[in-house]
Amino acid sequence: MAQHEFTTTRRVEFNETDAAGIVHFSNFYRYMEYAEHAFFRSLGRSIADAELDIGWPRVHSHCDFKKPLKFEDEVEIHLLVSAKTSKSITYQFRFSTGGTEVARGGFTVVCVRLTEAGEMKAASIPPEIAALIEAAPEEKLAG
Amino acid sequence: MAQHEFTTTRRVEFNETDAAGIVHFSNFYRYMEYAEHAFFRSLGRSIADAELDIGWPRVHSHCDFKKPLKFEDEVEIHLLVSAKTSKSITYQFRFSTGGTEVARGGFTVVCVRLTEAGEMKAASIPPEIAALIEAAPEEKLAG
Amino acid sequence: MAQHEFTTTRRVEFNETDAAGIVHFSNFYRYMEYAEHAFFRSLGRSIADAELDIGWPRVHSHCDFKKPLKFEDEVEIHLLVSAKTSKSITYQFRFSTGGTEVARGGFTVVCVRLTEAGEMKAASIPPEIAALIEAAPEEKLAG
Amino acid sequence: MAQHEFTTTRRVEFNETDAAGIVHFSNFYRYMEYAEHAFFRSLGRSIADAELDIGWPRVHSHCDFKKPLKFEDEVEIHLLVSAKTSKSITYQFRFSTGGTEVARGGFTVVCVRLTEAGEMKAASIPPEIAALIEAAPEEKLAG
Repeated sequence: MAQHEFTTTRRVEFNETDAAGIVHFSNFYRYMEYAEHAFFRSLGRSIADAELDIGWPRVHSHCDFKKPLKFEDEVEIHLLVSAKTSKSITYQFRFSTGGTEVARGGFTVVCVRLTEAGEMKAASIPPEIAALIEAAPEEKLAG
Repeated sequence: MAQHEFTTTRRVEFNETDAAGIVHFSNFYRYMEYAEHAFFRSLGRSIADAELDIGWPRVHSHCDFKKPLKFEDEVEIHLLVSAKTSKSITYQFRFSTGGTEVARGGFTVVCVRLTEAGEMKAASIPPEIAALIEAAPEEKLAG
Repeated sequence: MAQHEFTTTRRVEFNETDAAGIVHFSNFYRYMEYAEHAFFRSLGRSIADAELDIGWPRVHSHCDFKKPLKFEDEVEIHLLVSAKTSKSITYQFRFSTGGTEVARGGFTVVCVRLTEAGEMKAASIPPEIAALIEAAPEEKLAG
Repeated sequence: MAQHEFTTTRRVEFNETDAAGIVHFSNFYRYMEYAEHAFFRSLGRSIADAELDIGWPRVHSHCDFKKPLKFEDEVEIHLLVSAKTSKSITYQFRFSTGGTEVARGGFTVVCVRLTEAGEMKAASIPPEIAALIEAAPEEKLAG
């Protein structure tokens, strides 16, 4: 059955903080990707699948930062599939700690194959992956 | 005289690439911040000014990725001030290599002071900084 | 009862790999620190303890790399306390995946307090921490 | 003429600091590699040379940390070739800011080729590279 939602947690590591004493904003994007890859594993797949021979470059990403995260905070990352086309998937990510939302962002990935010249070219999402993922219902995304 | 534009370059470092052979998307956000801090230095200031005792957390960031960057590519980062209020500055960043734009993004920073309780609170941009920075004209931003 | 050993695992994240397709060597040092901090949590403490007001800068670190780690490898990190003085702790870390040791390294941390001038000065490890940690027996370290 | 020495500088970036307000120790290893790659460019070569089809994995690295580096410090990195064999090069790196040495470390890299099975195998350093690099004289290394 296709999935549109996934939740994972991680604890803030010391090297992810900066001299302002909080998680460097660039690391929220790494957390997003971390959740995306864990989502794929939860579906029994790997984002890096040697047989499928596809890649998933990000074509857009964004994030709104509401409250800082600090060292050793336990962060819950809630992934929602906000859109899906034949060649792309858009995810929304909500970050919270202790029940408080601290950030919300997202990114769009495009399924690509390498051409013989070594350039990335958009490709249809393979059916074995497409069957596992669906867009979340409107009401969940509006939350 | 207030400035609204700045250009700097850097060369892609090996640790900034990932197993896809390209710069990890999160590093474009580090490049943006790198340009912001170099912009401040070009104005004779530091983003971390012990006397002013302010901080500049990011409240929003975004980026569109058009082409990948690879190891040792020389990247030109073109900063434009796209908006300025009494307490915030919004920047646009255009990334190019060899004359081709590869990505475009931006972020909004808010000027803050720490309260006695150690929380960040929005504050007016100090006049000595505000006098140095202005929003770029419409036509430059539309380019 | 004082502890001299601890084991934790983590999965290689995509941003930790580089264009050679393997974990960037600098990240093994981040994995070491990750294990050190998890060791402290396992003792009911945090490495960042606001009340104790101490720091633990690294004064030496090293690592031998035997085999590469790849994306999504599950890495076991085995921490051993190899030496302890009144002001410092030396750790050994063994990295393995699938039962094969891939790297072995270590670091020495010194307990410090900040002077009034803001400089770090070596200090005795507080007794409540010192009581929890002991050097591992010779035979374990020789393994 | 073969070279055994090289100096480069970089300025500490904000994302390289941590919540202790200083450069995270793992980043000194990234600075070492940065200097190694700049050294190759100074010789008219790239460490990533598609035609030579070799790699340079690190088999050992170490560093002693004497004083902390802070945001925007200008760091001088002094590279010395401390040893060279038919298949490996060992480098020493001295880090200083404002004329004061803050850290000293090094690493050993082995020249490798990929076997058909995709494993890295030690290989002779290609003559066009070997001719450009020599070990530094004893007295320089002892400094």
